[in-house]
Amino acid sequence: MDAIAVYEGADEPVVTEKPRPEPAPGEALVRTLRVGVDGTDHEVIAGGHGGTPAGEDHIVLGHEAVGVVEDPNDTPFEVGDVVVPTVRRPPNGANEYFARGEPDMAPDGEYHERGIVGAHGFMAEYFTSPAEFLVEIPSALAEWGFLVEPISIAEKAIEHAYASRSAFGWEPESALVLGNGSLGLLTVATLDESFDRIYCLGRRERPDPTIDIIESLGATYVNSNDTAIPDVPEAYEPMDLVFEATGHAPHAFETIEALAPNGVGALLGVPGDWEFEIDGGRLHREFVLHNKALVGSVNSGYGHFESAVESLSGLSAEFLGDLVTGIHGLDEFEAAFADDDTTIKTAVEFIAYEER
Amino acid sequence: MDAIAVYEGADEPVVTEKPRPEPAPGEALVRTLRVGVDGTDHEVIAGGHGGTPAGEDHIVLGHEAVGVVEDPNDTPFEVGDVVVPTVRRPPNGANEYFARGEPDMAPDGEYHERGIVGAHGFMAEYFTSPAEFLVEIPSALAEWGFLVEPISIAEKAIEHAYASRSAFGWEPESALVLGNGSLGLLTVATLDESFDRIYCLGRRERPDPTIDIIESLGATYVNSNDTAIPDVPEAYEPMDLVFEATGHAPHAFETIEALAPNGVGALLGVPGDWEFEIDGGRLHREFVLHNKALVGSVNSGYGHFESAVESLSGLSAEFLGDLVTGIHGLDEFEAAFADDDTTIKTAVEFIAYEER
Repeated sequence: MDAIAVYEGADEPVVTEKPRPEPAPGEALVRTLRVGVDGTDHEVIAGGHGGTPAGEDHIVLGHEAVGVVEDPNDTPFEVGDVVVPTVRRPPNGANEYFARGEPDMAPDGEYHERGIVGAHGFMAEYFTSPAEFLVEIPSALAEWGFLVEPISIAEKAIEHAYASRSAFGWEPESALVLGNGSLGLLTVATLDESFDRIYCLGRRERPDPTIDIIESLGATYVNSNDTAIPDVPEAYEPMDLVFEATGHAPHAFETIEALAPNGVGALLGVPGDWEFEIDGGRLHREFVLHNKALVGSVNSGYGHFESAVESLSGLSAEFLGDLVTGIHGLDEFEAAFADDDTTIKTAVEFIAYEER
Repeated sequence: MDAIAVYEGADEPVVTEKPRPEPAPGEALVRTLRVGVDGTDHEVIAGGHGGTPAGEDHIVLGHEAVGVVEDPNDTPFEVGDVVVPTVRRPPNGANEYFARGEPDMAPDGEYHERGIVGAHGFMAEYFTSPAEFLVEIPSALAEWGFLVEPISIAEKAIEHAYASRSAFGWEPESALVLGNGSLGLLTVATLDESFDRIYCLGRRERPDPTIDIIESLGATYVNSNDTAIPDVPEAYEPMDLVFEATGHAPHAFETIEALAPNGVGALLGVPGDWEFEIDGGRLHREFVLHNKALVGSVNSGYGHFESAVESLSGLSAEFLGDLVTGIHGLDEFEAAFADDDTTIKTAVEFIAYEER
C-alpha cells in the first residue's frame, strides 16, 4: 500500500510502498479516508521531534485521521463504521495513564505518538489500531472527521482551564484566541456558545480569508501589528480566557497581562529555546493580586475526542468549507503540505467516503 | 482605647488613642486578644499599600486577629465566644463576590482590607465586625487564633492548586515550599498529611531555628545558596506542588522548572517591578509538554478560615511554641515588629485570654 513518510536526513515527505498491516488480536483494520496536516507535521518533517520508530529509518506521517473499519477482526466494531484514531500509544504495554483514559497526562517515556514520535502515523491507505484507541463518529461527519483530533486538543485545554477556575464562582464572558491558524479558528468556532464576546489575534492584514472566517463567526479580529497583547485590555477588554495557539514564546507571558482578574490562560504552543526580558516582578504580582492562572496543555484523552465529535457536529458546513482550503489526493499530496497565506487547513485524501 | 496605627508620612507604628467603637446593627463588639504581625504589615508601614481609610490620616494596623465577643449586640454570638475576623469588607454595601462568600475573588475597587487598605485593622483593644465576617473558633485555640488568618491564605492557595489539577487523576507525593518565613513554615506543617515528602527552601545557613522547625516537621531543608530552584529536580526530585511564599519574582518563573510533569505551582508573593531575562521559550515549552500550571492566589474566603481552624487544631503545641517567637504586650509592641534572624512569628497581645 502507499504511505506518506519522511526518511531520516530528508527534509520533505515522499510516497513510499509499505505492506498492508495485519490487525493483531484486539485490533481493527481501518481503510484511511482523510488525514489532516498541521504544524506538528511540519515539525516532524523538519526533524524537530526526532522519533522514527525503533529500528526504522522513516516515520509514516499523520496524526489527524478518519477512516472506515474494513476488518473489525475481534473488536466490537462493524464493517463500515467511521472511526477516528487517538494519537498516543503505550510503548511497553499499558501504564496507569492509559488505564485511566488519560494518555495525554503520561510523562516522557510513557507514550509514543503515532506519526509524531516513536510510532508510524496514519498517512497510509490502511492502518490498524486497538479498538480502545478508535472513536466511532457519525457517518455524516466522515468528510470532516480529520478535524476531530485538532478539536480534541482545544477541548482538553479548555477543560483544564475551566478546572483551574472551579474552586470559585467563575462566570467568564470574554475569550481571546491567540493565533488565526486552523487550531485558533477551530477554537473560536467551538467556544462560540460559551462566551459572550470572542476575539482572535493574528498578524495578517486585510483582506485575508482567516479574518473573514473570524468575522463570519461573530468574533472580533485583533491585529497584533496594531495592538500588542498587553494592550488588549485597554483597546478591547480584559479577557476571562486566553487560548494561546501561536507557539510564540513571549505570548505565554504577555497572556498574564491580557487576562481579567480571576482569568486563566491556556498555553498550547511548543516553542524552541528563546531568551528575552520580562518584567517578572510585575507579572508575578499580577498573577497573585488578581488570582490569575496559566495552564499548559498537550495532546488529548479519549473523552476529549468524544467531546470533539460533539463540537464538530455543531459546526456549520459553511465554516468548515471556508476552513478547509484543500483536500488533496495522493497524486498531489505535496500540495497538502504547502504553507502560504491562502492555505488554512488541508488534508490528504486516500479514498473518498462512500456510505454502504 | 489604645490602638497601634501608622500615620501618613511616618515610617513606624505608634500607639494612639481612639474612641472605643460602637457596634452597629448586625455587628458584634469584640475584645481583642492577640494580633499577629506579618510581611504585609511591614509593607503597610512602608506605605506600599497606601490605603488609609477615606478622610483619615492614619490606618490602624493588623489583619491577623483573635478576640472574644464582649457585646454580641443583635448577632447570634454569645458573650465569651472566641472569634477570628476575616479581612476583606465590601466598600459600598454587598457585591456578588461577598454574596458568594468569595471576597478573596473580588477585583480592585470591590473590597477594602482591614489593616491593609481602605479600612482600619484589628490592632486595638476593641473592634466591631458584622457577624458574617467573624469565624468562631474553639476556646482551646484562643491563644493561637491569630494564626488562623495566615493559615487560611495557604488553604486557599492549595485549594486553587488542587482545583487546577481536578480534570485528571492527580496523585501528588512531593511538595516544595519556597520560603521559610512564618507562612512557609505554617504551610509545611499543614501540608504534612497530604504529601509523602515535603521540602522547604530558604537562604539561611545552619544553625538556624527555622531549619530546626522544618526538620522537626519531618521535612527536608533546601538551602538556596547550594541549590538553585531549577536544580531542585536533579538534586532532590521533581515537585508535584510548589508553594511560593518568598515574593522573590524570579522564583515565580523558576517554579516551572522545579515542577514534575502535571505539577502545579501556587504563587503568593507580591513583588515590586523587576525586569530580568528568562528563557521564555524553554519555560513555555515546559508548561505545555508537561501539562504544568501556575496559579496566583491572594487573600482567602470564609470557607478557608474554617479549614484553617481545622488545620490549626491539628498542629502540635511544640511546633506552635517554636514558631511563635514573641508575644508582646502593648508596652513593648515595637518588639513585635522586629525583623531579625531570631524572629519567626510575633503577635501583639492586648489582653490575655481567660476562660469564662
